[in-house]
Amino acid sequence: MPNPTAAMLVIGDEILSGRTRDANMHHLAGELTKAAIDLAEVRVVSDDPDAITAAVKALSRSYTHVFTSGGIGPTHDDITADNVARAFDCSIDVRADARALLEAHYARTGLEINEARLRMARIPDGASLIDNPISTAPGFTIENVHVMAGVPAIFEAMLADVLPRLTGGQPVLSQSLQVLRGEGDIAGPLAELATQYSDLSIGSYPFQMDGRFGSNIVVRGHDGALIDAAMAELNRIFPQ
Amino acid sequence: MPNPTAAMLVIGDEILSGRTRDANMHHLAGELTKAAIDLAEVRVVSDDPDAITAAVKALSRSYTHVFTSGGIGPTHDDITADNVARAFDCSIDVRADARALLEAHYARTGLEINEARLRMARIPDGASLIDNPISTAPGFTIENVHVMAGVPAIFEAMLADVLPRLTGGQPVLSQSLQVLRGEGDIAGPLAELATQYSDLSIGSYPFQMDGRFGSNIVVRGHDGALIDAAMAELNRIFPQ
Repeated sequence: MPNPTAAMLVIGDEILSGRTRDANMHHLAGELTKAAIDLAEVRVVSDDPDAITAAVKALSRSYTHVFTSGGIGPTHDDITADNVARAFDCSIDVRADARALLEAHYARTGLEINEARLRMARIPDGASLIDNPISTAPGFTIENVHVMAGVPAIFEAMLADVLPRLTGGQPVLSQSLQVLRGEGDIAGPLAELATQYSDLSIGSYPFQMDGRFGSNIVVRGHDGALIDAAMAELNRIFPQ
Repeated sequence: MPNPTAAMLVIGDEILSGRTRDANMHHLAGELTKAAIDLAEVRVVSDDPDAITAAVKALSRSYTHVFTSGGIGPTHDDITADNVARAFDCSIDVRADARALLEAHYARTGLEINEARLRMARIPDGASLIDNPISTAPGFTIENVHVMAGVPAIFEAMLADVLPRLTGGQPVLSQSLQVLRGEGDIAGPLAELATQYSDLSIGSYPFQMDGRFGSNIVVRGHDGALIDAAMAELNRIFPQ
């Protein structure tokens, strides 16, 4: 059976303007690989209602899971929750369970719970909450969409709450070989190996080091013995 | 007149598996902002023919420019050029001008020009070449799509060749203010300011420092005097 698939939707003008460097994509990619869920697509869109709604609709139809990052804070440009609700034709308002979490948090910290902060308790009907151990304001899961914060520490904590509840596939195993030859040298034999081992995925990633070109060859698959065989063949073709 | 728009398409399994951290998105975002071209969407897809073709079609229809990154090397998993050609129903083969560049390069370096390396001279009919001062194998522009390498140094060099040929809009000016208050505290006054200065874009980006929450408020727009006025108002509302 093929692995479950996933897409990520990053929401935020600050990423697209180059002001902020997204860190969540790389983290999510690594965690999903460990969980044997195949990240198949990422989209980054701006803080625009129609762009968010259209992307949520398209991605939630095409993949087993969708993970969103950003736009669930208290300010006027935090519009993710409302537009995820809109994508599912779902009503949304300040919800009692989320409000109670925030009230308890602000009572502890002595901060006032104002209208802006209450925006973070806007949760679509039927959604389940995602725990935020860092700043309390929860994320949520609706249908197959997991809505999480953009601040990396909070995104990572929320993902740690969500991931154990999802069913992964067969773990993907991988081994790699670094060769100090350019891709142009190794491409021919590599293509033959890829044909011979069609159940494995064989990728080649170029790098430059001290002015020389090299390649990392990565062999991925579900069958450890088959990967061992391909690696033995690789070491024979490209002796170190 | 609104600024020209752009999308980026990052192609590569290695990004989606978490093996490689993409660096080109952040670089492109910054350069486009300087050039007054609005980056409106980014997509990351795998080394899959249909995924690449579908994304190129969708993005080239929706935006003034599309910039792709990755998948134009010599190996069997470098399939970007062929699938960009497919998206435009365009024929593609080893082209004489690109072949001549590679032949001269490999004659200089003493490397053999084999079948794999010749793949890098596959250029769609009617495309114009993008200069690659680092490893010679060119990128290309077809219609409104600029096809560039994934290796960051080469991507950056190719972008430097392409960007000066494109017409930007009015430069976006910005000023920012850092306040050591959480977004929940500042969201109310900020929303009012955003309404009052509707020709400006006012964003707020939370951060954590020494366990305290703070916010960077960024005011963007085309009218420097209007931004000065909004910043004066901001400094009045949030005195340091």
